[in-house]
Amino acid sequence: MPDPAQLRHLHAASAVAYPFTELCKAGKLTEASATFWADDIMSVEPFPGPYALLTGRDAVNGKVEYWSRENTIHAVAVEGPFVNGDQFALRFSLDCTMNASGVRSVQHETALYTVKNGRIVEERFFGMF
Amino acid sequence: MPDPAQLRHLHAASAVAYPFTELCKAGKLTEASATFWADDIMSVEPFPGPYALLTGRDAVNGKVEYWSRENTIHAVAVEGPFVNGDQFALRFSLDCTMNASGVRSVQHETALYTVKNGRIVEERFFGMF
Repeated sequence: MPDPAQLRHLHAASAVAYPFTELCKAGKLTEASATFWADDIMSVEPFPGPYALLTGRDAVNGKVEYWSRENTIHAVAVEGPFVNGDQFALRFSLDCTMNASGVRSVQHETALYTVKNGRIVEERFFGMF
Repeated sequence: MPDPAQLRHLHAASAVAYPFTELCKAGKLTEASATFWADDIMSVEPFPGPYALLTGRDAVNGKVEYWSRENTIHAVAVEGPFVNGDQFALRFSLDCTMNASGVRSVQHETALYTVKNGRIVEERFFGMF
């Protein structure tokens, strides 16, 4: 029988992972970030450029707003949470059109979240290229 | 235009991620680990017990062998690689039967691999509970 203390440690992120994921699956991404991001959240993207590595809620929201202007989302599928200790992962499929080119595609990514003191302190994105 | 040096750094794991994933998708898991694991690979599982945290090829192979004895795999689906810098993620769905109980289910997990000097130095598993 697993030791309860070990289980609590191993799934420390669950208290954030499950409600955060539920909001994401309901399309409530703004509420999810407002509720669960730490003020000094760090965001790590797999591509280069001005949004590759950001710190702080305002900066990361700036990236989200930039992305929302450049793309039209048709559908989002969210799978997870996949949990281990103080981290959890979500798998996203975003059916979207790049506004500038009109090109529509499905973007696949895995997002890895690190939790500390009941807040997400880092979001790290992994892309399929 | 992205800086080539930045792209190389951001996708440093790709040289391992793509061939490793190809072997996994072909069902050649033994060859994948034999080819790409570092000798001192660390393995981190999300559940407690003797196989939760292991170091070294022999120890991790011991976990794989234990799991293979306890379970019968009917099908494995592998998605990815999802890449960022020196890490990449794979998403696994394993349709398997626990031999002891006869219970069949589909296990979903995300595996996060850390690459150093052309070898996988850590595999970290995230489960859906």
